[in-house]
Amino acid sequence: MEYDFKRLIILGQIFLLMSLGASAQIERVEPLNWWVGFENNDLQLLVKGNNISNAIPSVSHDGVHLMSIQKGTSPNYLFLNLNIHAETKPGAFDIVFEQENKETIRYSYTLNARKKEADAYEGFNSSDAIYLITPDRFANGNVINDQVTGLKDQTLNRAQDYYRHGGDIRGMINHLDYIKDMGFTTIWPTPLLTNDMSESSYHGYAITDFYQVDPRFGTLDAYKELAQKIKENGMKLVMDQVANHCGIEHWWMKDLPFNDWINQQESFLNKNEILKSNHRRTANQDMYASKLDKQQLNDGWFVDSMPDLNQKNPFMATYIIQNSIWWIETLELGGIRQDTYPYPDKEFMSDWAGAIMKEYPNFSIVGEEWSMNPLLVGYWQTGAKNKDGYESNLRSTMDFPMQNNIVAALNENEEWDKGLVKLYEGLANDFHYATPEDIMIFADNHDMSRIHTQLNEDYVKTKMALASVLLLPRVPQIYYGTEVLLSDAEKPGDHGLIRTDFPGGWLNDTVNAFTGEGLTDEQKDVQNFLKKVLNYRKGSKAIHNGKTIHFAPENGIYVLFRMDGDETVVMILNKNENPIELDLKRFIEMGLDDKTLKNIISEDSITWKGPLKINDRGVILLTTKL
Amino acid sequence: MEYDFKRLIILGQIFLLMSLGASAQIERVEPLNWWVGFENNDLQLLVKGNNISNAIPSVSHDGVHLMSIQKGTSPNYLFLNLNIHAETKPGAFDIVFEQENKETIRYSYTLNARKKEADAYEGFNSSDAIYLITPDRFANGNVINDQVTGLKDQTLNRAQDYYRHGGDIRGMINHLDYIKDMGFTTIWPTPLLTNDMSESSYHGYAITDFYQVDPRFGTLDAYKELAQKIKENGMKLVMDQVANHCGIEHWWMKDLPFNDWINQQESFLNKNEILKSNHRRTANQDMYASKLDKQQLNDGWFVDSMPDLNQKNPFMATYIIQNSIWWIETLELGGIRQDTYPYPDKEFMSDWAGAIMKEYPNFSIVGEEWSMNPLLVGYWQTGAKNKDGYESNLRSTMDFPMQNNIVAALNENEEWDKGLVKLYEGLANDFHYATPEDIMIFADNHDMSRIHTQLNEDYVKTKMALASVLLLPRVPQIYYGTEVLLSDAEKPGDHGLIRTDFPGGWLNDTVNAFTGEGLTDEQKDVQNFLKKVLNYRKGSKAIHNGKTIHFAPENGIYVLFRMDGDETVVMILNKNENPIELDLKRFIEMGLDDKTLKNIISEDSITWKGPLKINDRGVILLTTKL
Repeated sequence: MEYDFKRLIILGQIFLLMSLGASAQIERVEPLNWWVGFENNDLQLLVKGNNISNAIPSVSHDGVHLMSIQKGTSPNYLFLNLNIHAETKPGAFDIVFEQENKETIRYSYTLNARKKEADAYEGFNSSDAIYLITPDRFANGNVINDQVTGLKDQTLNRAQDYYRHGGDIRGMINHLDYIKDMGFTTIWPTPLLTNDMSESSYHGYAITDFYQVDPRFGTLDAYKELAQKIKENGMKLVMDQVANHCGIEHWWMKDLPFNDWINQQESFLNKNEILKSNHRRTANQDMYASKLDKQQLNDGWFVDSMPDLNQKNPFMATYIIQNSIWWIETLELGGIRQDTYPYPDKEFMSDWAGAIMKEYPNFSIVGEEWSMNPLLVGYWQTGAKNKDGYESNLRSTMDFPMQNNIVAALNENEEWDKGLVKLYEGLANDFHYATPEDIMIFADNHDMSRIHTQLNEDYVKTKMALASVLLLPRVPQIYYGTEVLLSDAEKPGDHGLIRTDFPGGWLNDTVNAFTGEGLTDEQKDVQNFLKKVLNYRKGSKAIHNGKTIHFAPENGIYVLFRMDGDETVVMILNKNENPIELDLKRFIEMGLDDKTLKNIISEDSITWKGPLKINDRGVILLTTKL
Repeated sequence: MEYDFKRLIILGQIFLLMSLGASAQIERVEPLNWWVGFENNDLQLLVKGNNISNAIPSVSHDGVHLMSIQKGTSPNYLFLNLNIHAETKPGAFDIVFEQENKETIRYSYTLNARKKEADAYEGFNSSDAIYLITPDRFANGNVINDQVTGLKDQTLNRAQDYYRHGGDIRGMINHLDYIKDMGFTTIWPTPLLTNDMSESSYHGYAITDFYQVDPRFGTLDAYKELAQKIKENGMKLVMDQVANHCGIEHWWMKDLPFNDWINQQESFLNKNEILKSNHRRTANQDMYASKLDKQQLNDGWFVDSMPDLNQKNPFMATYIIQNSIWWIETLELGGIRQDTYPYPDKEFMSDWAGAIMKEYPNFSIVGEEWSMNPLLVGYWQTGAKNKDGYESNLRSTMDFPMQNNIVAALNENEEWDKGLVKLYEGLANDFHYATPEDIMIFADNHDMSRIHTQLNEDYVKTKMALASVLLLPRVPQIYYGTEVLLSDAEKPGDHGLIRTDFPGGWLNDTVNAFTGEGLTDEQKDVQNFLKKVLNYRKGSKAIHNGKTIHFAPENGIYVLFRMDGDETVVMILNKNENPIELDLKRFIEMGLDDKTLKNIISEDSITWKGPLKINDRGVILLTTKL
């Protein structure tokens, strides 16, 4: 099934022509529209059109002032610096481009009223549980858009891991109920913007138009509908954004506005060899790093097919910042996940996050620093007491060290410095983080082996890992399908395989995880387990923001408490195969003696007294909230 | 050979009786003496004597005021709080103890003038190179004191790793020339105070008298002579101190001054089971650690034979602080190494280090936190921006993480995240440390396998490790005998074996590393290598305090530069077995092109130009200082 994207584009252009009258030379004005009433009143429009730099633009509208204009090095760009007074009446106004010996162009630009107060944009936080989805692999809600004529990647084959599989925005909309019922409060789909790349376009990280939804995923309206329905369900939507690079098929690659729009632009234009990033991310912090190492980290391309944007060019910097704000405002986002955080210019990243947080003080952004080193993870978080004075303005970072610790805790045999102590000592590192509760934790994500694979397909361990993710003082993120033990054991770490189709997301799937049909007992057990914990977590202040107390592992058992007022939640991770007694006297300081606690999964009650007999390996979750 | 320690004690007591006249009840007054002119004018004397708490003490001396007295819970202790005015004339004065129905006791106590200005106590720093010695195993300078009657451990057998071998202070004095010629500037002997323990007394960490030199090592005068000769040679002496515990045979264990003088005192007195430390050192920092975990860390005993001192008792706290100051002043120390730093009460440790640094602002103390976690290593250093506000007052910590990185860098095969990159990324962590140049680095020490053993007895690697230790921006420490490749490969990690006898330290040793007699070619090569690097380092401002620049390892080669003014020192670590060319263009930012550099070891000159051909695996050290 496919529909004709070219035709759609042509139709769109005709529509544009009609609306512009004779302004045929204006190909693009970005941001597509703007709003009145931001903290920052400035707006910089990128205008693209044939020889547009020769035109003299002007604006005549109450409250809107054209402060300055700037030509690019390409004659086909003009950058307009507007100031929009806070009292400006929302609506459309004309931008007039006068041209010598040519017809004057009028472009109608729209300023909208803001939908809600800046403070009301509440970002994800530790009271949330995030469901991470690779949209191409979750559910195919609209088979019409599986293949789209005019786009380069025409692959469509579910048997091929790196081909497109047809999942889309409609698929996510169709299954919001499932996600909500499971107990998730936030959805983070990997990027949904156009990746008009010749191959592997399914993953979404090689964006070729920062203002367009990939037609294979749906339309801007569909994205808005998803956002709206998520909001109606009391949930939050996180957008996955990429400031470091674009796809090599990005529209501007054929006509770059400035001669320093991307890094290594000259090499690119001369078809010389492009230096890849050295990926030595420590150079961002390293006091001793050579200039060369820093430059190769930040200016090297991530991969050959993804040109590295030069955020040191102030027009590029503004373009990226405004693009982020445009999406927040358009979709009423509940957060941004920013890709490859340590690769762009770090001063820019601080400005970018700062500009967003200035507009949306309660917003959340999480940046991806894939490092096992808590020093690096902590460096990027706002409020970090960095010796070099760096302030990231970034609320959340990703807890790759803890992910690693959880796996080690469960896979390693118990020894003095191995096994559960990795979790205990890993958590001890929180003393270093500015706000550990804002850090995102996960058992796996779209770039690493499925947790069930990492844990050697031991579903009891998988439950232990998930419980840890949900009980620690963090923002938890679960990757779609983890609840039904999706695995990449066949070819561990293979990206295409990690992003396996969610069972039931396609018509006629024999197994359907949405309905439970065809699931194994183990899959059902884990799905049920996760659902119970997530739903308990939803209302648990102890888990959201409570105090944390834990005890050094002993005899293969690790015990962690979360507390808020009368509510105490206990997590017991037990690695013993044989029945064992846990002496509760050790936990006397918790004040639970003789109290009744409920098992969150079995709903049985126990009295906290004497030795607790534990028959099975696994996790026990208890609460005083009966 | 032995001499009679009991007789010595008896002689001492007779002497004491003579000097005290009739004051037979005064067994001890500690500190043994004091000085006039400290920042802190207060002095607290511990007085021990039979029923001394019933006496009424008084002092009548210009400038010395008895401010208050405090009884212990044992009747045999009295604590006197004196204030010593800055203008007090040095000399002896009497402390008079009046007793009901008994003779008045007069005790003559001495106040000395300070030998030098407080500022003149310059602690070790990154311009130094420290030679760490286990005295029992270095050189036997006095066979008379090998066994001492009256002491419990009568073992003496060089064939037994845990017996005493006879090395002593005289042995170190005799070989100061060797140490100096090698290029070391500082000597750190492990503890030399009395360990009157029944076994393994050789290591010195179970101190049974904090004011007495172990007679098997020599006398206080010998220690002073060592200190004096070190000073005369322009070197520094570091004392190894232990604030956490004492030996179970410590004199006060038979009559404890207070009922909370040691941790778990009641269990000890009732011969109940003593809880060992849980050794979960992260509990010191962990925001979530249970009270129990913290208590078990700090109040548990290190081992059964070493009672844990209770530094929360203010008299114990003062005792330890004054003891440290007494030794600094008595020996004119150039630093203290404090054992088991994370085990005592951490607030006390801050007070202790703070009290010392107040008296000796240029002093250095290094604390032992054996952790691979830079977060913990950094936490303990003064100036750390700790979230919990903890200020340690500790100038130097120990770089166990970097030791680990050096070994990994050399032993691991080169991969993206293995091998030399461990050194590169490990050093990048310096961005976190308050003053990385004050941190002590080492290839090995007395508690871990010899570096030559850790590196699988590959002497080329051993030289690479030593070069790293000496070139990084740190305070380097080398363990005695490393220069002649001492090894514990026979039983890796065995403490007794790690502390092997230094060849030539004993009469009739067939191999003599002091003279070179009987050394293998490899041993000679490494000894010569170390000597050359150390002696170059002595005068190298670039290494002492210069700027550091390094480049990410490539093709099995890691290059690091140290620079100060005209002096640039280059360290090239090359792991390639086959000849390889290093393209110097990559280092253009260093400004060395066309310059002449000298090889520090071979003394050959090269021109920094084009590719550098490297024929052999190993380390190349180059300098612009010709």
